[in-house]
Amino acid sequence: MKKLTTTIFTLLAIGALNAQTIESPSKQVKVNFELTGNGQPSYSVIYKGKEIVKPSTLGFVLKDAEALENGFTVTNYTTKSVNDAWQPVLGEYKEIKDIHNEGTFQLTQTSTNRNVNVTFRVFDEGVAFRYEFPKQQNLNYFIVKEEKTQFNLTGDHQTFWLPGDFDTQEYTYIESKISGIDHSKIDMNNGIGVKSIGKPNSVQTPLQMKTADNIYLNIFEAAVVNYPVMHLEFDKNTYQFKSHSANNAIGDMAYLQAPFNTPWRTIMVSDDARDIVGKGPQMILNLNEPSKIEDTSWIKPMKYVGIWWEMHVGKSTWDRQGTQNAQNQVGQEVIKFPHGATTENTKRYIDFAAKHGFDGVLVEGWNEGWEDWYGNWKEDVFDFTTPYADFDIKEISDYAKSKGVKMIMHHETSGSVANYERRFDRAMEVMKQYEYPAVKTGYVGRIIPRGEFHDGQTMVNHFNWTVERFAENKILVNTHESSRPSGYHRTYPNYIAAEATRGNEFNAWSYGNPPAHETILPFTRSLGGPIDYTPGIFETEMKVYNVGRDTKVHTTLAKQLALYVTLYSPLQMAADLPENYEKYADAFQFIKDVAVDWDDSKYLEAEPGDYLTVARQAKGTENWFVGAITDEKARQTEIKLDFLAPGVTYEATIYQDAKNAHWDKNPKAYDIKKLKVNSKSKLKLNLAASGGTAISIFPIK
Amino acid sequence: MKKLTTTIFTLLAIGALNAQTIESPSKQVKVNFELTGNGQPSYSVIYKGKEIVKPSTLGFVLKDAEALENGFTVTNYTTKSVNDAWQPVLGEYKEIKDIHNEGTFQLTQTSTNRNVNVTFRVFDEGVAFRYEFPKQQNLNYFIVKEEKTQFNLTGDHQTFWLPGDFDTQEYTYIESKISGIDHSKIDMNNGIGVKSIGKPNSVQTPLQMKTADNIYLNIFEAAVVNYPVMHLEFDKNTYQFKSHSANNAIGDMAYLQAPFNTPWRTIMVSDDARDIVGKGPQMILNLNEPSKIEDTSWIKPMKYVGIWWEMHVGKSTWDRQGTQNAQNQVGQEVIKFPHGATTENTKRYIDFAAKHGFDGVLVEGWNEGWEDWYGNWKEDVFDFTTPYADFDIKEISDYAKSKGVKMIMHHETSGSVANYERRFDRAMEVMKQYEYPAVKTGYVGRIIPRGEFHDGQTMVNHFNWTVERFAENKILVNTHESSRPSGYHRTYPNYIAAEATRGNEFNAWSYGNPPAHETILPFTRSLGGPIDYTPGIFETEMKVYNVGRDTKVHTTLAKQLALYVTLYSPLQMAADLPENYEKYADAFQFIKDVAVDWDDSKYLEAEPGDYLTVARQAKGTENWFVGAITDEKARQTEIKLDFLAPGVTYEATIYQDAKNAHWDKNPKAYDIKKLKVNSKSKLKLNLAASGGTAISIFPIK
Repeated sequence: MKKLTTTIFTLLAIGALNAQTIESPSKQVKVNFELTGNGQPSYSVIYKGKEIVKPSTLGFVLKDAEALENGFTVTNYTTKSVNDAWQPVLGEYKEIKDIHNEGTFQLTQTSTNRNVNVTFRVFDEGVAFRYEFPKQQNLNYFIVKEEKTQFNLTGDHQTFWLPGDFDTQEYTYIESKISGIDHSKIDMNNGIGVKSIGKPNSVQTPLQMKTADNIYLNIFEAAVVNYPVMHLEFDKNTYQFKSHSANNAIGDMAYLQAPFNTPWRTIMVSDDARDIVGKGPQMILNLNEPSKIEDTSWIKPMKYVGIWWEMHVGKSTWDRQGTQNAQNQVGQEVIKFPHGATTENTKRYIDFAAKHGFDGVLVEGWNEGWEDWYGNWKEDVFDFTTPYADFDIKEISDYAKSKGVKMIMHHETSGSVANYERRFDRAMEVMKQYEYPAVKTGYVGRIIPRGEFHDGQTMVNHFNWTVERFAENKILVNTHESSRPSGYHRTYPNYIAAEATRGNEFNAWSYGNPPAHETILPFTRSLGGPIDYTPGIFETEMKVYNVGRDTKVHTTLAKQLALYVTLYSPLQMAADLPENYEKYADAFQFIKDVAVDWDDSKYLEAEPGDYLTVARQAKGTENWFVGAITDEKARQTEIKLDFLAPGVTYEATIYQDAKNAHWDKNPKAYDIKKLKVNSKSKLKLNLAASGGTAISIFPIK
Repeated sequence: MKKLTTTIFTLLAIGALNAQTIESPSKQVKVNFELTGNGQPSYSVIYKGKEIVKPSTLGFVLKDAEALENGFTVTNYTTKSVNDAWQPVLGEYKEIKDIHNEGTFQLTQTSTNRNVNVTFRVFDEGVAFRYEFPKQQNLNYFIVKEEKTQFNLTGDHQTFWLPGDFDTQEYTYIESKISGIDHSKIDMNNGIGVKSIGKPNSVQTPLQMKTADNIYLNIFEAAVVNYPVMHLEFDKNTYQFKSHSANNAIGDMAYLQAPFNTPWRTIMVSDDARDIVGKGPQMILNLNEPSKIEDTSWIKPMKYVGIWWEMHVGKSTWDRQGTQNAQNQVGQEVIKFPHGATTENTKRYIDFAAKHGFDGVLVEGWNEGWEDWYGNWKEDVFDFTTPYADFDIKEISDYAKSKGVKMIMHHETSGSVANYERRFDRAMEVMKQYEYPAVKTGYVGRIIPRGEFHDGQTMVNHFNWTVERFAENKILVNTHESSRPSGYHRTYPNYIAAEATRGNEFNAWSYGNPPAHETILPFTRSLGGPIDYTPGIFETEMKVYNVGRDTKVHTTLAKQLALYVTLYSPLQMAADLPENYEKYADAFQFIKDVAVDWDDSKYLEAEPGDYLTVARQAKGTENWFVGAITDEKARQTEIKLDFLAPGVTYEATIYQDAKNAHWDKNPKAYDIKKLKVNSKSKLKLNLAASGGTAISIFPIK
């Protein structure tokens, strides 16, 4: 079902065009556009009658050409109203509505006779705008030195920020006022391999904020294609934020040819935090192009296990020589460990997956090169085609096939993208030969071509290119250490998930992810696309592995279960070791049961940095799953089950923190109880400090 | 047949090692090595008792590590004498002798406990040395910021120089004293697309020189693998030359990991210029590794014609829209031309090749992308797989096959190596599908990854990578606009030729190649490997094409014939249009007859910048071919045919300049005469200004 109501107006009274207002369908959100006295485009944003973005100018500095900043006149203005709906291949919702009003300003710089269009889309949940460079005589190839998009905010808002690092998002969020953003607050001994912070007064997007009068504001972007990722540079005193992107090695930001459209710059706004996490991702998707994959029947959600956490807890290694694991990498004396990716061990995981109904098995460390893979900016690291001698790829794929389990390929590039691209087609041949339907890619390390950053134009193009190439070959891709997504999985639904955040593994060997971490992610990283956070760690305390470290997961066991619901992804890992799941088989049942693709999602409660409660309806069923999490503060709450179908009785299985549970002191204490519920039921939830509740709700037949 | 006589001495009296002399087998060339007072390695070169390189120091500046320049002691010294011989797959000689004495100094930097070996090989024709970084505790990954190899010369020698441009060698040589080298003498309106001259006091290698007392001296290098090309920086007053290489975008010169050997730095020396051109290339080959291709049976020499000169003279275009040819590219009003690479036109060339016994047909402009391929640093230019709709690749390959003619693929990258590498495997699939056994690659344009240069480490690696990848697929490769070769065709004999010089096409649309040009190339560009100069232009005057230009080839027609012998290559093009060859069918007979692979070569006369006379024996035959060329001065000479087999009578066909021939005034005037000759014959040759003589000598049976 696809509805499209579009009305296009073209206003020809040019003189009257220089200032316009565009309202959202509900009229609660408005954009005012005008040209400043010197002909510079400027916009402001009003929410419920109150200015939330003050007049902010737009423009570009170019290389070897006059800037596209001022001297503009509006030479045309067109508007459009859209009321559309579409069905994602995989997603949080069966259908996504795209309802917005659009206005496009054709700006002509008189002195150079060059045109730039600025298009605004105003949704009830926020504003998006982009620059469009139409095909024209006087602007063909051009090089952007700097995009000068302003976001002039109205006060010293509360923020959840990461430093503007062009190579990584793997920091922990810091919560502070704008005036309190200060990179010196970051503990740089945070386990991140490659850090490249450009300016000290810079932060990443999505930037989640909250105003003094409880308006939630979020600056992000959508459809980052052939353009670098947008970070923000800011002024603590004026609360001015400006777009800020990585340059390449020779100081250029983007190489473009008209016609070209930039990514959408987005400003989400609501006085209800649930709108940000519930509607925000839909707005981002609406701003991306529809699927370019015609036949999407091969794109399936996936729950998987794999040889991965073993290496993080120091039980085995990526390399065959037995030195490379995440416990060893921090300068400890090298202990010899067994290689993880052996034929025998892989078969053990395949058996486990088959027994418990998992779709896939990921195996890291299967291929040669791991002995010397990290930290030296090495170009020819892996060939992506040669298994270690103790990994019999043919035997393993045959075995997996016989058990009905899919193998997930792993391509760690160590940042040497030049090497990966050269070997990409041959790597894909191996996948096709052994029928791997999915791949996890990794980019741990400084980028080669040297001088490029993970968030620069070259790497954005690389990530998108891998997605497109894998699509051509009907392969699902899950990128780790990539730039953070901005909705491109609408256009390429085989882009099934990405990490692009501080994942669960940091808990194994660094100071970890603080209790609030997972309550912030839905307001930031998750807005752009599915997250492969690798939840489900039951053995939260690393001391049991006797590797000399007392690190731990900063949640209770029950919260690990709830993450399967609170962090949306159609690709979810049960990340812990099989033996740990066998030890807690009753809790493991939730991971076995939980869906990863949905017909509907209800964000019941949300406060960034504090808590989140979500209910989701599994695709094509009447089964519901609820996840509730909290930060370091224990929390009691009550939820209504009014999302359930009226008149149906369900059995709810509640996986909750035990009374004395606590992420640090008693993380593995949980209770499981079963209840009969219906749409009129209310449930009291008791969450421990950094605890959670996971609930499965199945209709009784 | 392979002989190897090796004697290895290890001298253990460490104190005695700090100064050593290594002599060539004949003892005419000597290297003196010593450590300076501060422990810096230094060498000098003596030729026939006379110093020709004064004490010159060696060393490296590293990034983030102490320099490897001084504080060394000699901790070991080993010597070796080699008397070896080997057979090239294709070459100027059936067998190449490798006779030299070698000395290796193990240098230990005491303060850092790091080792660098310096190995010298002293041949009768010159000296070679390289740095070797053995595997060791204290030096694993390292980044070279600067190599500090000196060549301290003894006087103000005559030189034939090109500016130290990291992107091109397509300049004309300038002849001057060292003190007279001056980049301001270069006419920069020279038709070169991309120029990147680093330092003003820099020149390229090979640098051919002549001392006041008539000693020929040449500085070059061999086996450039995973390392940038060596240029030279110099001091006009002291005659000091220093190694000088391109850095990448972030200012680094080479990323290395021990063990690693640098390329060989070579100093050829002789009082007979013929030794440089005759023995020099053999010395370069001897310094390269033996063939890594085991089965070389598929590597065959090739004479070819092609759709190429058409676009240079403005008769047709590369693109299908009809705008892109070499006459149009200089800002003239665009005239619409027909597309060159049509099915019909290609068949015409196939017919011509089949009729006249050529092995291959090259077609440029066969694939989509040419409309917008040049000059904009565009990344995704060509896909290398999609033929224009008027080029029926299947029909053409079938037709070529039916005629016994091989098709030569063309991959123009426009410098976008990132794009080429990404698409390389798919491009190769097309070649395999249609059975193309050879490819011409092109690199016209600024390099992408941006910030890299044609002569930097990244691009050297790219060129070598293509050679290796094509070898794996049994494909011959001919690189244009690549870095100039340094003997890697010994290691990969499928690297059949390269341009890497100002080729014949510059005569079509720029101020051209001066008459001396082809007499200098054997002393410079040809030392490193076969040259695809594309000779054989019979219609030397562009005015006949009515494209508004009066450019011309700066030779006589007869000299164009002689170039097939004077410029060695197992891949030679008959570059002119079929209709021009049909017009001069008697002269064309020489191109049809001439061999391109040889059992022997005799350099009879040579003087850089003045003249060259070479006789070559065609592989596996008693047929000989002689080429003689001169610069702008007409020349009379007499050659002895004592290289012919005694007692055999031969018929010599002499293609010579007519009496009134002159490259500028009367270029197409030639005579052909036939004579009976034997090993006692002498032939008087009369060469016009920029003229030549070509002779075929076949035994009478």
